Amino acid sequence: MSFLPQNFSINSKLIGGELVIGGCKATSLVAEFGTPLFVIDEADFKVRLNTWRSALVRHFGDQAGQVYYASKSFISVEVAKWISESGIGIDVCTGGELAVALAADFDPEKIEVHGNNKSEAEIARAIEVGVGKIVVDSHQEIERVNRLAKSAGKTQSVLIRVTPGIEAHTHEFISTAHEDVKFGFSLASGAAWKAIEEIEAAPNLKLLGLHCHIGSQIFDPEGFEAAATRLISLLAKYHQHFDRQLQELDLGGGYGIAYLPDEVTYDPDLAMSALAALVKAECLKNKIAIPMVSIEPGRAISGPTTTTLYEVGTTKNVELDNGAARRYIAVDGGMSENIRPALYGAQYFAILANRTSKATSTSSRLVGKHCESGDILISEIDLPSDINPGDLLAIPATGAYGRSMASNYNHVPRPAVVAVVDGTARVIVRRETQDDLLALDVKESPRKI
Amino acid sequence: MSFLPQNFSINSKLIGGELVIGGCKATSLVAEFGTPLFVIDEADFKVRLNTWRSALVRHFGDQAGQVYYASKSFISVEVAKWISESGIGIDVCTGGELAVALAADFDPEKIEVHGNNKSEAEIARAIEVGVGKIVVDSHQEIERVNRLAKSAGKTQSVLIRVTPGIEAHTHEFISTAHEDVKFGFSLASGAAWKAIEEIEAAPNLKLLGLHCHIGSQIFDPEGFEAAATRLISLLAKYHQHFDRQLQELDLGGGYGIAYLPDEVTYDPDLAMSALAALVKAECLKNKIAIPMVSIEPGRAISGPTTTTLYEVGTTKNVELDNGAARRYIAVDGGMSENIRPALYGAQYFAILANRTSKATSTSSRLVGKHCESGDILISEIDLPSDINPGDLLAIPATGAYGRSMASNYNHVPRPAVVAVVDGTARVIVRRETQDDLLALDVKESPRKI
Repeated sequence: MSFLPQNFSINSKLIGGELVIGGCKATSLVAEFGTPLFVIDEADFKVRLNTWRSALVRHFGDQAGQVYYASKSFISVEVAKWISESGIGIDVCTGGELAVALAADFDPEKIEVHGNNKSEAEIARAIEVGVGKIVVDSHQEIERVNRLAKSAGKTQSVLIRVTPGIEAHTHEFISTAHEDVKFGFSLASGAAWKAIEEIEAAPNLKLLGLHCHIGSQIFDPEGFEAAATRLISLLAKYHQHFDRQLQELDLGGGYGIAYLPDEVTYDPDLAMSALAALVKAECLKNKIAIPMVSIEPGRAISGPTTTTLYEVGTTKNVELDNGAARRYIAVDGGMSENIRPALYGAQYFAILANRTSKATSTSSRLVGKHCESGDILISEIDLPSDINPGDLLAIPATGAYGRSMASNYNHVPRPAVVAVVDGTARVIVRRETQDDLLALDVKESPRKI
Repeated sequence: MSFLPQNFSINSKLIGGELVIGGCKATSLVAEFGTPLFVIDEADFKVRLNTWRSALVRHFGDQAGQVYYASKSFISVEVAKWISESGIGIDVCTGGELAVALAADFDPEKIEVHGNNKSEAEIARAIEVGVGKIVVDSHQEIERVNRLAKSAGKTQSVLIRVTPGIEAHTHEFISTAHEDVKFGFSLASGAAWKAIEEIEAAPNLKLLGLHCHIGSQIFDPEGFEAAATRLISLLAKYHQHFDRQLQELDLGGGYGIAYLPDEVTYDPDLAMSALAALVKAECLKNKIAIPMVSIEPGRAISGPTTTTLYEVGTTKNVELDNGAARRYIAVDGGMSENIRPALYGAQYFAILANRTSKATSTSSRLVGKHCESGDILISEIDLPSDINPGDLLAIPATGAYGRSMASNYNHVPRPAVVAVVDGTARVIVRRETQDDLLALDVKESPRKI
């Protein structure tokens, strides 16, 4: 049994040169379910759900609010059940994500609704089913949620999405006055305070607290701390003005994960430890009680749990103009089930998954089967020079924004998602068929309109 | 009736301040079919199919090969019927695209199969149904196609995809020896010649000619001409060596279209005129007969025909750090049905589609409803400052790589595609429902594997 770097899911091992995930051999999974295949390490997913909750509770104690799983990273009915069973909450951005949560019998009280442009139908449905919180994002939405809550004869609890002027990306953060983003109410311009006043004046809204989200794939605490500092100032201003406190501070997600072997997934305990120290100090300084603190990890839970298995179809050696050589290895998927390399320049790692190779490594490029030269999964990676058609490759850390952003580009069916645990496997999202691809084609007669 | 710039489809007009496409008012289309909505100008699509064919015939005469519509840009069963009825061919890259063509009863002889990594099943199916040509892309594929044709008791006609060392992008082209792409056989390295020899020696393959494709969204003839020159040299070498000629030269697609008002869609007549002059001169120089010349426009046909209609949901004014202001206008779609701005930095144009506005223009950013700050459709555009929730916006030139690359990110249903002509409308690809989104979720029991 060999070592795998920590960008693989917890229950991934190499046994006799073959990748084994959750006790299931890569070759067996492929024989049973085909390729490309998303293999989700169910036990790892459940551990990560609990780890974030435990870390929040450990460091915030009675002031631990809720962990909301960010469903945009990846959600299915089965995964929503795992989340529900773990006791944490879920955040949804659309009617579609809400429908998945409800199909899993998720407790509506633990559902939080996001989005910069929720439709009236989406808001009405969320109020109707009794979601715990709607995070309001614009002045127009305050009016809408209040009006639709009134129509439903309810009072809807809301958070205000505040843009604190902190933009964080990976290893740095930028502090600005005005955030040039579509989301939320600006702190510096006074829009956030105006939103507070509007909500306080709205008879069918109950303001629970403030929310912010500063970015994604972040590895340092500074950005979260700067944002928390600014939001706590606003909580203090509220306290001074209304002589009572807002009970909740939701600091969003964005905790980074390891895609490459030399990267390190953000440790939940370290993240919550740093945040709790900062929040406590800032509340003391501002003379307010510590609010309930909530967080919204998505990628940090789903990302590391999943590995994509591919079969190699063709290989090709290209001589480059500088005299160097590059080996192209084409697999049976590509930008349709992982758009992140093309979309964000995201870097991934791959290993030979079905056997050991003693061949020397060679500079390789892993590409897909789409009719587009930008259909590249890994631009540059050293892989054994004897990888050939029929071999299996595994890319780890594909659980977030892989299947969730998948397309049918080139009419390629989207892959299945299989959950593995203790040597067992089951499909939780089935592979599309050609019939599925044709199911939206309709034959209508033209009509005057 | 007001002027619309040429990035709108031919039968688009402004009547009384309202956008009318194919005789159908934007407001009527939206009332009937909802938003976001892809509106395809059917007559325009059919004109463009014929225009490319006519231009090819006009300039190449008896040596006009086939126009193959590149289905990756956008295909549905109904659109495949339009293409079939026009008499031109279709190129498909996958089993899924082939299935669409066959569902439209496309003449298999006019189907050309592309792809750098066709599966054995895809190749076998293509041979079984009798496709006219398979464009072989690797040495491994030559062996596969020959073997599978033999199994089927057939001889399969093939083209060789050659990488000629010409990379063309928009307004420039680069001439290199070795193309660093996943596709095809390098001319300079001798791989293309080796492929010719392998195919000539393969009993179940018939080599018809050579193919290349140099890029996309190209506006100048130089790149096409440089590629044609290199491929004609290879045809001449073939002639010298085998004392007979290859009959076909397929020069692919890549002709640019207008996305913005000040851009000009590549004129088919100009394109074919320049190409024909070059091909004739080069063949004369190389002392070979002019081959049948084929082309593969995709975006150049589908792109300009389609307009996306959106409804505005929220607006927001943001003060920027430099003191300037930006108006965010959020519509009810975004990166799920148009990934091109996020993926390629592609620029689009939009107009207010439901009414006239006399308000002053203001610097605006058109964004979608996805939970991602990069969900931007148009980064910077001047739009009337009184655009408000409920208004309709139209983005022209969305026919290529919009619906075809669409995802269900955030569980957003993919929009319908409606064909309009002469005041009539009909759905050709229906809108997804929430039931569709949940249809792939399955509940299986874990089993030992």
